[in-house]
Amino acid sequence: MSKFLGKSAAALTPYVPGEQLTDRVYIKLNANECPYPPSPGVERALRDAEYRALRLYPDAEAKALHAAVAKFHGLTSQEVYMGAGSDEVLGYAFMAFFDKGDKVYYPGITYGFYPIYAQLCGLEAVEIPVREDFTIAVSDYYGLDGNIIIANPNAPTSLAITPEEVEDILNHNPDRLVIIDEAYADFSENKTVVPLLRKYDNLMVVQTFSKSRAMAGMRVGCALGNPELMAGLTRIKFSFNPFNLDPLAIATGIAAVEDKAYLAETVGKIKATRNRAGEAMRKMGMTVLPSETNFLFAKHPTIPGGELCRLLKAEGILIRHFAKPGIDDYVRITVGTDGDMDTLLEKLGALK
Amino acid sequence: MSKFLGKSAAALTPYVPGEQLTDRVYIKLNANECPYPPSPGVERALRDAEYRALRLYPDAEAKALHAAVAKFHGLTSQEVYMGAGSDEVLGYAFMAFFDKGDKVYYPGITYGFYPIYAQLCGLEAVEIPVREDFTIAVSDYYGLDGNIIIANPNAPTSLAITPEEVEDILNHNPDRLVIIDEAYADFSENKTVVPLLRKYDNLMVVQTFSKSRAMAGMRVGCALGNPELMAGLTRIKFSFNPFNLDPLAIATGIAAVEDKAYLAETVGKIKATRNRAGEAMRKMGMTVLPSETNFLFAKHPTIPGGELCRLLKAEGILIRHFAKPGIDDYVRITVGTDGDMDTLLEKLGALK
Repeated sequence: MSKFLGKSAAALTPYVPGEQLTDRVYIKLNANECPYPPSPGVERALRDAEYRALRLYPDAEAKALHAAVAKFHGLTSQEVYMGAGSDEVLGYAFMAFFDKGDKVYYPGITYGFYPIYAQLCGLEAVEIPVREDFTIAVSDYYGLDGNIIIANPNAPTSLAITPEEVEDILNHNPDRLVIIDEAYADFSENKTVVPLLRKYDNLMVVQTFSKSRAMAGMRVGCALGNPELMAGLTRIKFSFNPFNLDPLAIATGIAAVEDKAYLAETVGKIKATRNRAGEAMRKMGMTVLPSETNFLFAKHPTIPGGELCRLLKAEGILIRHFAKPGIDDYVRITVGTDGDMDTLLEKLGALK
Repeated sequence: MSKFLGKSAAALTPYVPGEQLTDRVYIKLNANECPYPPSPGVERALRDAEYRALRLYPDAEAKALHAAVAKFHGLTSQEVYMGAGSDEVLGYAFMAFFDKGDKVYYPGITYGFYPIYAQLCGLEAVEIPVREDFTIAVSDYYGLDGNIIIANPNAPTSLAITPEEVEDILNHNPDRLVIIDEAYADFSENKTVVPLLRKYDNLMVVQTFSKSRAMAGMRVGCALGNPELMAGLTRIKFSFNPFNLDPLAIATGIAAVEDKAYLAETVGKIKATRNRAGEAMRKMGMTVLPSETNFLFAKHPTIPGGELCRLLKAEGILIRHFAKPGIDDYVRITVGTDGDMDTLLEKLGALK
């Protein structure tokens, strides 16, 4: 470690993304990427991009993208904040809505980046345990003395709480900001809590284009909420890296959000494949949680999670394992194409 | 302001980028953008980009881009850190190499983002005044009790210190990190201090693809330094937003850095135009500092800076004015094409 590293930077435990191996061709079910390409409109946006314009700084306000996302959700542009992936949005939210020493509450099993942001901002992270079946007990979130962040549906559990349960948390914490991270909401039955935004000034929704819109490469995510909250994120952006979206991210982002039919088609295919593959795995004796996401959180009857991960990797299939107490026996398997999942099922069957 | 905004976020004074006006066609000399397009290789990289691959996360380590930049500078990949523009690199440097309450030293006239990063990280910012002629007195930087950041050449003054002067500062602060921000170094006589990197473990160089490489749109910047320093930046990246470079930024960045001939040609043209335009402005009675950048820092004999800015804007030319004591009479004028500068000179002449 560099002798110039600050004490707080030295204390960080950085995030470990899913492996991006290139030593052979893998069926990649380890990063919750979409198995289908982005909307054909994204290809056109890319082909139409004017390379000569790259000499200029992008629109730091990304006005056209804000307008497109606002239109999709029936909001105004002032109720939208666009970031370079939802990770950047979340990072800025932690910087904007917390001061050093503040508490932040989130479920004990959830997205691994929340504790890292908390550490980065010097917050006291309070993990609220999930139930033994991995569900979230909403009453555990009543009257808290810090802001709350909940991935809904949650990762890697794949389980969701209902909009009514989100409202319950909002009503019990009127003076606390409640951030609902909806990275996987398009795959859930209840979809988004965006319709609650104008009813609750303490609600902020975070979404990403990386999953249902197949745009993980382009780094586009957003926050949705009242204009004051969005202005808080903008304030951090303009104090850190104002030009966070390049013109290609803006153009392809607009194309992606405008193609509602393609989104519905992609999500429909993934949900059908998910339900079929989950059912087949259950028939094999595996425990598979009822997923509302584009991945399956599953446990093999005899093979521990880490071992299952290694065995499938040797067979050319990458899945994800989290060596964390409580979920150590489980693996997270992204829903691929029907063909991907057939291969997975075949390999899983051969392991028995 | 949102009631949920943290106290430290509320106290920030965010950066104000140069205007991006679209109400009419302007000659845009206000953001130090390159008047020429990026290398033709960038266009090819964009055309060859595989849209279907955008469904996947990018290589979080951007290994191919690191290798290309390392090769350009005669360094190893471990001596390179690639960021989403040099603003992101600088922001991460402030997060990595300082703790709250630490001092950071920089010239009293310099890039307006340094005080903002200092504020964001809760540092004590100490501005060391420049001389009356805007030059930096190196001896003012001896034996400081905090890390140092110097834009070299400096902005908006357009003046540079020599590599020997940088060494002098390094030698007088062996236990302090010295960050040399070389956004404009390609336009200077002495170019970069990269050759000093292996001699001084307390030196870090920051560069951008936004100026000499005409890639402001694509958000590519880098730090160069010893592997431990680079690992410090990587540590922050993986604790904040690991996928900071999309595959198009990576591909176009590689194309840009590999085209050395185009860089030399572009820089040569801009320097020739700069010197000619600067001389012509001096003949008009303007004060023009001897620029080692792609902009001119200039004072009109009778018209104050803000007023000059407004008058030229009415004539369809955007330049930049900083309403800051000491430089209030000056304007910063980006060097455009010969045609741009001829129009500028004509309009300036008509103002007299």
